[in-house]
Amino acid sequence: MIALFTDFGLDGPYTGQMKAVLYDLAPGKPVVDLFADAPVGNPKASAYLLAAYASWFPERTVFLCVIDPGVGGERPVLVVEADGRQYVGPGNGLFELVRRRALETRTFEIDWRPQRLSASFHGRDLFAPLAALLARAERPPGRLRDDGVDRRPDWPDDLAEIAYVDHFGNAMTGLRAAVLPPGAKLLAAERVLERATTFSDRPPGAAFWYENSNGLAEIAINRGRADRDLGLSIGMSVAIVS
Amino acid sequence: MIALFTDFGLDGPYTGQMKAVLYDLAPGKPVVDLFADAPVGNPKASAYLLAAYASWFPERTVFLCVIDPGVGGERPVLVVEADGRQYVGPGNGLFELVRRRALETRTFEIDWRPQRLSASFHGRDLFAPLAALLARAERPPGRLRDDGVDRRPDWPDDLAEIAYVDHFGNAMTGLRAAVLPPGAKLLAAERVLERATTFSDRPPGAAFWYENSNGLAEIAINRGRADRDLGLSIGMSVAIVS
Amino acid sequence: MIALFTDFGLDGPYTGQMKAVLYDLAPGKPVVDLFADAPVGNPKASAYLLAAYASWFPERTVFLCVIDPGVGGERPVLVVEADGRQYVGPGNGLFELVRRRALETRTFEIDWRPQRLSASFHGRDLFAPLAALLARAERPPGRLRDDGVDRRPDWPDDLAEIAYVDHFGNAMTGLRAAVLPPGAKLLAAERVLERATTFSDRPPGAAFWYENSNGLAEIAINRGRADRDLGLSIGMSVAIVS
Repeated sequence: MIALFTDFGLDGPYTGQMKAVLYDLAPGKPVVDLFADAPVGNPKASAYLLAAYASWFPERTVFLCVIDPGVGGERPVLVVEADGRQYVGPGNGLFELVRRRALETRTFEIDWRPQRLSASFHGRDLFAPLAALLARAERPPGRLRDDGVDRRPDWPDDLAEIAYVDHFGNAMTGLRAAVLPPGAKLLAAERVLERATTFSDRPPGAAFWYENSNGLAEIAINRGRADRDLGLSIGMSVAIVS
Repeated sequence: MIALFTDFGLDGPYTGQMKAVLYDLAPGKPVVDLFADAPVGNPKASAYLLAAYASWFPERTVFLCVIDPGVGGERPVLVVEADGRQYVGPGNGLFELVRRRALETRTFEIDWRPQRLSASFHGRDLFAPLAALLARAERPPGRLRDDGVDRRPDWPDDLAEIAYVDHFGNAMTGLRAAVLPPGAKLLAAERVLERATTFSDRPPGAAFWYENSNGLAEIAINRGRADRDLGLSIGMSVAIVS
Repeated sequence: MIALFTDFGLDGPYTGQMKAVLYDLAPGKPVVDLFADAPVGNPKASAYLLAAYASWFPERTVFLCVIDPGVGGERPVLVVEADGRQYVGPGNGLFELVRRRALETRTFEIDWRPQRLSASFHGRDLFAPLAALLARAERPPGRLRDDGVDRRPDWPDDLAEIAYVDHFGNAMTGLRAAVLPPGAKLLAAERVLERATTFSDRPPGAAFWYENSNGLAEIAINRGRADRDLGLSIGMSVAIVS
């Protein structure tokens, strides 16, 4: 299976052209849209989302990841193998948390370039053909790098920020609920939020945080929109209070 | 074929994770997104939409339906068979109109639970595996219930409300056009609207209602947006005037 | 491969019903969403987008194109063959630029009508079955028209307008960058914009135009949104200045 993780949106021409490449070069492989609305141009917040969501997928899934504000510039092109899954994308920190949390990981820097490489759409021209090649179980066409290429040691293990706002207005943080102390409260937009187990725990209109289905601490309002009602947006910081 | 009927949106991680389950457990079965923007947390309005749209699909289609504001709480898990199609989802009234309008119907309450069941994403963990199982033509893992579980006798046969606003700003009601008297007008947002056969019947800018391609009475403006121009939104009531 | 080019959106019921037809009548053929958010009800702007994007696809791709404000009225139903690709859709100018730029082209007017043809959703009832038939390599069920049916000789070779705004807020024009003079600047919303090679050429916040990955002149702001920051929207005119 190939999973797409991008900031491209689905309605316009970018995701469709990438899928055309995948269906052409890896026929018969299912393709799923994991995120098409990852934080635009924000590989750091995206890295925490990707690590939280990718670990749910079965082994041998190939993740085609394109959050690439530096397209056309000087970032390396990477294939990361981590705990049986593979990741293709730009070297801008996007795979930092996947690599940091994996038991086993290998990183390849890809030298291969397609004959036709546009200046602005490497997702279609470069990363999608690489993902198709991996989905066909071929070897990454690059050099194994065991020297820590594209590592971000200064990034925290968990990100105390809003990393994503979903279709319901729930605001995901980059914090894994499992690392928070028992009884931890979150402070966001000057509101102190207690932990709930699930939505039906709380009366309609109540704000709370809970561990979402992929393990992230997420701020929500039962039958409301946390983004609008609390004024939350991507990049806002969150504090842990006890 | 498996058809998805949810309020999850497509861009974010929910629909993609459900499809990952379906492709994994029912390989080769086509999956289509019927509605990913059904009325959020509103199983009643959704029930009228679902009944109008599902009947267009071929027999043996499996509908994976997740409008589930009560996730984590006490609602039953249902599989409904109706006129050769199958429906999986929460027991919150979502299948009331499908059941009421079917010639033949059977309802199973599902006891099976997956080993890993998150508190907030039963679409992925519970309903998608069930849909995959039905798509493989296996028997629902539950008890036949012929005692009227999850019926809503107080809900009307047709819903005199705006049930959906589409990409063009057209406002669908929960009223089947076929049950309205000849010459019926609709009153919505203090405007009386006459019936038209199709868009090209009316001059640009004119508001009207018509029978949409799935049989619902729908309010539209030729080359305009009825939602914005008339001030219509989901849940607003509509009256039938003669 | 079947590529969808519509103004239907993906979330609602229209694209999904078309795909249900395609999967049913052309099983095993991959379907990709090229544009689901082409300019609503605007076949002229859409024609320039379609010509720019279709030429990237491999031969034998079938394009199912539905920008159809005249549905229910009197436009012909067309199948166009152009340089090895096939296009299905309404005769409202949508294929003018594909035809004008092709080396070889044939146009069929389709007489076939399905048994059940709704008044408002020919995408599902008429165009999708035709696309499925072409994807199965069958002959178009219509008459070859070599008399210039549905030509628009008065439309320019390139459209000096904003034709599309993408997920990032970039504003595509209907101008092919290759036909602009060297050093050409674009004037849009009272701003004169210079050409850049790619985003990373310019400092954050700078507005510019560049040749996008499908050859169109596109207005963008590095790490900003050109639509919002410059006030650009579909239909605004653009001037070429030297």
